[in-house]
Amino acid sequence: MTSPAFGHVVIVGVGLLGASLGLALKARGAAARITGVGRRQASLDTALRTGAIDAGLLDCADAVRDADLVIIATPAAQVVATLDRVRAAAPPHAVVTDVASTKAEICAHAAATWPAPRRFVGSHPMAGSHKFGPEHGDPALYAGAACLVEADPALDPQALDLVHALWNTVGGRVVDIAPETHDAMVARSSHLPHVVAAAVASVAAEAGDIAPFVGPGFRDSTRVAAGRPEVWRDICLTNRAALLDALDAADARLAAFRNALAHGDAAAVEAFFEAGRRARHETVGE
Amino acid sequence: MTSPAFGHVVIVGVGLLGASLGLALKARGAAARITGVGRRQASLDTALRTGAIDAGLLDCADAVRDADLVIIATPAAQVVATLDRVRAAAPPHAVVTDVASTKAEICAHAAATWPAPRRFVGSHPMAGSHKFGPEHGDPALYAGAACLVEADPALDPQALDLVHALWNTVGGRVVDIAPETHDAMVARSSHLPHVVAAAVASVAAEAGDIAPFVGPGFRDSTRVAAGRPEVWRDICLTNRAALLDALDAADARLAAFRNALAHGDAAAVEAFFEAGRRARHETVGE
Repeated sequence: MTSPAFGHVVIVGVGLLGASLGLALKARGAAARITGVGRRQASLDTALRTGAIDAGLLDCADAVRDADLVIIATPAAQVVATLDRVRAAAPPHAVVTDVASTKAEICAHAAATWPAPRRFVGSHPMAGSHKFGPEHGDPALYAGAACLVEADPALDPQALDLVHALWNTVGGRVVDIAPETHDAMVARSSHLPHVVAAAVASVAAEAGDIAPFVGPGFRDSTRVAAGRPEVWRDICLTNRAALLDALDAADARLAAFRNALAHGDAAAVEAFFEAGRRARHETVGE
Repeated sequence: MTSPAFGHVVIVGVGLLGASLGLALKARGAAARITGVGRRQASLDTALRTGAIDAGLLDCADAVRDADLVIIATPAAQVVATLDRVRAAAPPHAVVTDVASTKAEICAHAAATWPAPRRFVGSHPMAGSHKFGPEHGDPALYAGAACLVEADPALDPQALDLVHALWNTVGGRVVDIAPETHDAMVARSSHLPHVVAAAVASVAAEAGDIAPFVGPGFRDSTRVAAGRPEVWRDICLTNRAALLDALDAADARLAAFRNALAHGDAAAVEAFFEAGRRARHETVGE
């Protein structure tokens, strides 16, 4: 690998996450150069203009041919196909990671297809926004974010170290996690809240002109419903089993609450809210 | 009525909402004096110390004897009983309002018991916080907030004007609304989001140590779950029918999503998120 730390970095997908990563690496002088790969020239032009990348290419195989580190930052549903293209074209020493919100399918595919010891290491930085596109790239996007990194004895230790270094460099906190455990946890911490927010927003709007009745609580509760439908479609479809399980758990809690409310059971209604409050406090510490 | 505008104002309940109202009126010199009524001397002392009230009394009847305007800012479940005490003790010219999050039960009780034309006018300012207590009183709490005010031909027009003036004075935007319509709307814009946030927080916490997997989306989505359980118990119990209806609407949407996900129906999954996004945009304009 050439100096600086990460050599020639290729970022496949120059949306919010990819462009922010480019800006964060550039701000720290951590990459010798950064090549962006996009499907649309306009996105590459924006990423070039903001300085997130040094060069932009439409062809993934061309871009990764002399890569030292490849970060796949495409939508979740395209990661597996992109992995195959990168594996076929990148040099053997290249380390590859991704940023997708689900890990089990992607890491299982990599484990089945990559040479051992594996130099693809799955990542999921818990950073983002309902904004999207390279024009919203932010070099501080990963500051303080939990960066969940695949744990597997079959990984190349050097590759694992480099991926850890990547997230530490941009300000994240690395958490090692088995892919299946990852997916079960984020189904509950992230995917379920997105589904529920979309349902709550739709239920409010179907009542007619609800705008005058909306306060800061509704805004906060439904903020994630402003995310891109196609992104959340792909995340849910690549995490079906765990999300179905989380939906069933939510359904059981809501059904119990409904029953308590229908019977005017004040103690059970209060206990439901007390459990939610305690759970949130334990989870986010506020 | 004496000058300034609202004369002797009595605020029954000096929690966040009551103390903030006192501070807002004092900041504008809009009350000749403000008496607070509380159940605990410590709360009254705090409200006195912060300047939210000029005097504090534990006895409601004593306090309202020479009131010009009474604002009932107790928890929702205590409003009806407080109304009876205020009606029996306040002078005939006094105008009375409240700030409770549900209106149908309270306004129906007032309509059945108050002399005509009625000088109790139900209010619900859409302001608040998960913080509580007079120590968090904020003179700007009502700035820009929708203040939902009962619409009913049986109201005394002077009393209605005074309550409109109250909310306009502290920076709110008055919206006239029939109590039943009010309750149906806030069941969807406020009460349902609180219930769902509590369920989501509990589902996350039951998975074990979820803290590393929590991002800003979870924090926003579940913020309202940090509210006081006894407050939300009372709000839900005083708005049962409308909240049960909102819960059923949410259950139907979530069940349809679950079915689409279980069958891998990508178009239906995307349409669900698209509907949520459009609904939120129409509702909050962002």
